[in-house]
Amino acid sequence: MTLADRGADPAPAFIGVDLGGTKILARWIDPASGRARGRHKAVTPTTGPADVLDAVADTVRALDPDGRAVAVGVGVPGFVIDGRVVVRCANIAGWDHPIDVAEHLGAVLGRPVVVGNDVNCGAVAEHHLGGDAATADDLLAVFVGTGVGGGLILDGRLVTGPRGMVGEIGHVTTTPGGALCGCGCRGHLEAYAGRAGLERRAREAAAAGRPNKLVDLAGPSTIKSRHLARALEEGCEVTASLLADATDALALVIGNAATLLDLRHVVLGGGVVDKLGQPFVDQIAASPSFGGLGPDLCALRLARRLDDAGVVGAAILAADRFG
Amino acid sequence: MTLADRGADPAPAFIGVDLGGTKILARWIDPASGRARGRHKAVTPTTGPADVLDAVADTVRALDPDGRAVAVGVGVPGFVIDGRVVVRCANIAGWDHPIDVAEHLGAVLGRPVVVGNDVNCGAVAEHHLGGDAATADDLLAVFVGTGVGGGLILDGRLVTGPRGMVGEIGHVTTTPGGALCGCGCRGHLEAYAGRAGLERRAREAAAAGRPNKLVDLAGPSTIKSRHLARALEEGCEVTASLLADATDALALVIGNAATLLDLRHVVLGGGVVDKLGQPFVDQIAASPSFGGLGPDLCALRLARRLDDAGVVGAAILAADRFG
Repeated sequence: MTLADRGADPAPAFIGVDLGGTKILARWIDPASGRARGRHKAVTPTTGPADVLDAVADTVRALDPDGRAVAVGVGVPGFVIDGRVVVRCANIAGWDHPIDVAEHLGAVLGRPVVVGNDVNCGAVAEHHLGGDAATADDLLAVFVGTGVGGGLILDGRLVTGPRGMVGEIGHVTTTPGGALCGCGCRGHLEAYAGRAGLERRAREAAAAGRPNKLVDLAGPSTIKSRHLARALEEGCEVTASLLADATDALALVIGNAATLLDLRHVVLGGGVVDKLGQPFVDQIAASPSFGGLGPDLCALRLARRLDDAGVVGAAILAADRFG
Repeated sequence: MTLADRGADPAPAFIGVDLGGTKILARWIDPASGRARGRHKAVTPTTGPADVLDAVADTVRALDPDGRAVAVGVGVPGFVIDGRVVVRCANIAGWDHPIDVAEHLGAVLGRPVVVGNDVNCGAVAEHHLGGDAATADDLLAVFVGTGVGGGLILDGRLVTGPRGMVGEIGHVTTTPGGALCGCGCRGHLEAYAGRAGLERRAREAAAAGRPNKLVDLAGPSTIKSRHLARALEEGCEVTASLLADATDALALVIGNAATLLDLRHVVLGGGVVDKLGQPFVDQIAASPSFGGLGPDLCALRLARRLDDAGVVGAAILAADRFG
């Protein structure tokens, strides 16, 4: 990081907030460069959304005691309509009903607020700052972590949909009647490619008489993305097979999305992709299951691994709307 | 049709043209109601795109000798970029390179021209005039005929993509390595649900010792959509099985698209759907292969079966852009 971090230029005028299930993070963001300054954190209250929104406002005020921010962007782990209304947040206690977060926080903070789904915010950050993809008007960002989420840019704009559900790519079906997904359905992408789905399948394999390095390495703890990389390095065949299923499922869904939506650019990020790196992306591109009209249609790239991508993307949304 | 057809009101100011592989049709269209007036036809030249565009211009002039049209919309069987450039038209001889049809015809006709893919034009007509779906900002229209095509409306606008390929839903993969598609790939939706794919599979079944009514009814001629309906009525098990594969494939792809894009409305039209009707749509909605988060996410409806939907949709595109 450069001048901005050393305080040699004026603070950027936008604040990005990442409202997570366990913590709240607020930073000053320069939307043009993605550079961040300052940092205030708080623990996410477990006493309901009213307290959570108070905590967000307090965190923003702590970062900006003089009220210099032009606008604030907030990324949330839930469905967001029109940059304003958060329908529900599964990871935040009591948030089971729609709340106009932009109106509420806007009134409390005295400045405009825009809200976005946290994964969508990550996609926006990749689109604006992620190299080649930044110059394109179309981008699908797929984040493979515990689950699989995405964000979609068409004609240069984030698409969110009437119920804020655009980008729920983890719940696209690859195999009707297939592996159980965390959502209760069967055969979704996330059941094959998400870390939790991979863990479930690895433990099922072990229970069915196919011992594997993933279970050995993790023991009774959660199987982490780094365990995937290590087990693969150590030549575990079960791990290789599970990851082949994962890349086949990703290839099917990504190729189909590219064909349906005429996408030229797909970026892949998230914990699993970060640990497995370019070979994982190459394996997707080379999969015989690549969907639709094939891999020539779209270029797959690793995400840029921006620090605090959610915070940066939220601030970019604010700058796009109110800058 | 009412007053407009009887000439009691002034002619609507927009012309819609359907440029097909065999004929060209131009009509006056009232974009608000979809009502059509007048009709000029020509045979599509087979001597290259320059002659084809001359024939389009002649057809428009024959319909509008006094030059009263405000704007002209042209639907073409090819990929269209930005409402202007036709990348290629597989069904029109010699059209294997991009041509700025809007610029060329605009100069020749002396009025603004917009161009759209013909299937996309059908989707636009359904969106503007198709009842409940007309009030929605999101619509996927799927047309099942010889092949399977589609059109996508998001945030109230037709999405076409940087290469004009949005809506190529027939080439979404349902079954990696599966049935051969007309495009040469395997396992595409169109290979299971399109009339040509159904014919291919019916003839393969007969050759493999599974005689069936479809082949009996059509003999050496093409199997038509009406043969599908008749064979089903007559209790042909092979036909029922092929159509179950078709509805499963449609259900998988439609459900996945609805999940990825947060679609509330999907309309189904085209020759196969017209002949098989509501039971076909009901079978899609009830399929165990319904993709993504399931059929509750989106309502499936029969298309309105507008006469000359392509012509109407092309004129609506013209009115939207130049009205």
